[in-house]
Amino acid sequence: MSEMANKIFEESLNKVVLVQLKGGRTVRGRLYSFDQHMNLVMEDAEDITEVDKAKKLGTLIVRGDNVVLISPPPR
Amino acid sequence: MSEMANKIFEESLNKVVLVQLKGGRTVRGRLYSFDQHMNLVMEDAEDITEVDKAKKLGTLIVRGDNVVLISPPPR
Amino acid sequence: MSEMANKIFEESLNKVVLVQLKGGRTVRGRLYSFDQHMNLVMEDAEDITEVDKAKKLGTLIVRGDNVVLISPPPR
Amino acid sequence: MSEMANKIFEESLNKVVLVQLKGGRTVRGRLYSFDQHMNLVMEDAEDITEVDKAKKLGTLIVRGDNVVLISPPPR
Amino acid sequence: MSEMANKIFEESLNKVVLVQLKGGRTVRGRLYSFDQHMNLVMEDAEDITEVDKAKKLGTLIVRGDNVVLISPPPR
Amino acid sequence: MSEMANKIFEESLNKVVLVQLKGGRTVRGRLYSFDQHMNLVMEDAEDITEVDKAKKLGTLIVRGDNVVLISPPPR
Amino acid sequence: MSEMANKIFEESLNKVVLVQLKGGRTVRGRLYSFDQHMNLVMEDAEDITEVDKAKKLGTLIVRGDNVVLISPPPR
Repeated sequence: MSEMANKIFEESLNKVVLVQLKGGRTVRGRLYSFDQHMNLVMEDAEDITEVDKAKKLGTLIVRGDNVVLISPPPR
Repeated sequence: MSEMANKIFEESLNKVVLVQLKGGRTVRGRLYSFDQHMNLVMEDAEDITEVDKAKKLGTLIVRGDNVVLISPPPR
Repeated sequence: MSEMANKIFEESLNKVVLVQLKGGRTVRGRLYSFDQHMNLVMEDAEDITEVDKAKKLGTLIVRGDNVVLISPPPR
Repeated sequence: MSEMANKIFEESLNKVVLVQLKGGRTVRGRLYSFDQHMNLVMEDAEDITEVDKAKKLGTLIVRGDNVVLISPPPR
Repeated sequence: MSEMANKIFEESLNKVVLVQLKGGRTVRGRLYSFDQHMNLVMEDAEDITEVDKAKKLGTLIVRGDNVVLISPPPR
Repeated sequence: MSEMANKIFEESLNKVVLVQLKGGRTVRGRLYSFDQHMNLVMEDAEDITEVDKAKKLGTLIVRGDNVVLISPPPR
Repeated sequence: MSEMANKIFEESLNKVVLVQLKGGRTVRGRLYSFDQHMNLVMEDAEDITEVDKAKKLGTLIVRGDNVVLISPPPR
């Protein structure tokens, strides 16, 4: 990823990010770790695909090739 | 995967994990083995895609490129 | 694949395994051969996607990149 | 592919094989040539996706990455 | 591709071929050029996905990774 | 791409081409630039997926791996 | 990407671009950074897939392999 994307990932560590996945799911949680393939570790994560039915998932490992968008917290 | 993801995988060995797969299926079982591509071996696994109709699958080998999310047990 | 996955494949040779494929099909048959890409050769295989309408396929070569899950026999 | 898969392909040359493709189509025809990527040349092929409406296709080149399953003739 | 597939492509140059594409479209036209990835140049091509509504497309460049099947003219 | 495909791309520069994309969209515009992966730059482009509701898009960068077909202007 | 695509990306920095993604979503925002894989960082971004229900997303990291089209501002 670009240096800038890397910087934003670093700044987002331990903050709540929103992740849209291929296939339409959306998860939200605290970013705990990432690598250059956008493999992510998230904590206190929940699946918020259906806004009214958030499902708590706790710790999550997300395989990077499923990531479409990541939205870090406002800076 | 990142060192952190690797660490969480190691800590999850012999514990029950939840795995969401491409195409929408979800399986749950005891993590018995993993590699860097997220190929997994699970035991006492069941397909819980339809919550009311869990299907016992026993031992499972999951091809890593189908993995979307892995949710390890609470720490 | 991991050493453990390899070991389970080896132990499953000549035994009946269940294979779930991308796109939703499921086949069952005796595992006759495999390689590191999970290309499989199966014998006495049948397509059991629709439980009530199993279709006999005889010998099968499965291209590994279509494999989602493999469920070996109980140990 | 494994040595065994290769052997079965070789034995199937000039015999009728069934090929299931990604996206759900099924073709049947005489196997005329193959390579290590499972690119196939078939002759006297027909598309038998809809059992009642087989469509004659004659000679066919199948791009290997579309192959899901190949079922050689009974041995 | 195999030597045989290459030979059939060569023999099909300047002849009408049928090409089935991922996603379900079918085009037909005169094969003008090909390469090892099955990238194709076709002339006087038409989209015949809907048999009753053939759409003339003229010259076409087809990206090889979309090709499922190619059916050359009878020999 | 083949030398011939490359030649046709070169001849199409500054001319209007039709591009069919994976997922079913079709765009039309003046070809301004291309590379070996079929990444394209188009100008005065419009999305003509729905024939009656063309949407003007102006300049466009198209990621090559989404391209299915390119139809250059008649020669 | 081609030199020309690169130039257009550079000219689009800090300007509002429209990005169509695989799976059908469309986002719009200020382009803050990009790399050769079309990984993007966008700011003040919103999901405008449903024109009447734009959703503010703020800063966004877009994984390049999901990008179909990018439409820079008029020059």
